[in-house]
Amino acid sequence: MGPLTLHSYFRSSTSTRLRIALAMKGLDYTTVAHHLRKGEQREAAYLAVNPQGLVPSLVLDDGTVLTQSLAIIEYLDEVQPEPPLLPAEPVARARVRAIAQAVALDIHPINNLRVLDYLRATFGADDEAVAAWFRHWVAQTFGPLETMLSSRPTGEFAAGSTPGLADICLYAQVLNNARFGVDMSPFPVIGRIFAACDVLPAFRAGRPDRQPDAE
Amino acid sequence: MGPLTLHSYFRSSTSTRLRIALAMKGLDYTTVAHHLRKGEQREAAYLAVNPQGLVPSLVLDDGTVLTQSLAIIEYLDEVQPEPPLLPAEPVARARVRAIAQAVALDIHPINNLRVLDYLRATFGADDEAVAAWFRHWVAQTFGPLETMLSSRPTGEFAAGSTPGLADICLYAQVLNNARFGVDMSPFPVIGRIFAACDVLPAFRAGRPDRQPDAE
Repeated sequence: MGPLTLHSYFRSSTSTRLRIALAMKGLDYTTVAHHLRKGEQREAAYLAVNPQGLVPSLVLDDGTVLTQSLAIIEYLDEVQPEPPLLPAEPVARARVRAIAQAVALDIHPINNLRVLDYLRATFGADDEAVAAWFRHWVAQTFGPLETMLSSRPTGEFAAGSTPGLADICLYAQVLNNARFGVDMSPFPVIGRIFAACDVLPAFRAGRPDRQPDAE
Repeated sequence: MGPLTLHSYFRSSTSTRLRIALAMKGLDYTTVAHHLRKGEQREAAYLAVNPQGLVPSLVLDDGTVLTQSLAIIEYLDEVQPEPPLLPAEPVARARVRAIAQAVALDIHPINNLRVLDYLRATFGADDEAVAAWFRHWVAQTFGPLETMLSSRPTGEFAAGSTPGLADICLYAQVLNNARFGVDMSPFPVIGRIFAACDVLPAFRAGRPDRQPDAE
């Protein structure tokens, strides 16, 4: 693929997912950082790229803009199949997508910055109430995921012996959890998957603290 | 495929998505209804099927359980490709998935029953505050989607002249919106897509008011 431009924010866990996938595929890109706490994602220049004003967006060399981290990762997996981020067999693919979506739908959107800001502004939630909300939605999904992951294929990762889409989503969420003091001790299977990912260069390359806009 | 069992709730918009996809693929199934307002999805018998206690789940004839509506719909599209619910070309697929995910990630989880219940119980939100929350998150995403859909391929539907995954998600969300008094007049493109879907038998078959557990 030709030169890629990634619109992202170092701390955004959806951006972390996509950075890991790009690194796993061995794809280089230029980062354009948008500071979410300063509202830079709502500036007109970025809304012309992505009307949702969310990160990440990926711009291809012909100007095509792709949005939504999971959709972009599936695109990368289709146009550059090695290494695969999804298994080949349909039921196995569905299980990996379900784990990824449990994180990407049932935790992340509810705990996103804009939702936490709404809780503060409209319901007067203080830091402790916001952290309790965050931890509640993590536990509501990580608890069941422990059960679902316990019956996974043999191997260190969510779908066996190679990392993929589910691991990417779990890894980015666990990094995010640390900011809200989530106790990981009730989630040992996810903790072991995180540890297995955390030694891999592609996962480390996607971490917030490794980005050019990191503070 | 052999006999399928769908665990669902008539009013659940994620269940509506899957019912439409099953109808488009011409697949029959037996419905097992779980009344979400009575908490039936948290009973032990259902948690043994889906540890997340969410609907829908689809059980295949060999007992395999699939969860997460988007993952299940992609599975159906892989094992029974006609009619396709995603375009064939990777950028077009990514755009359809991004529209579907804008609804499925950025609206639905934040407006789900369990989140609204948390707002009531913890922050004392009344009916009007809950409805305002619901409408806010719809508008935050439907507004940008109007822009994104305006540049779509020629045709009545999100990806051109045939309905698919994006239309399924938009249709189910618009049905859900009606319960919270969402004014659709700022969203004419989505309104036209809804109307185009609403005359199709498969979409009508998925509607909440057509289900055996409808009240």
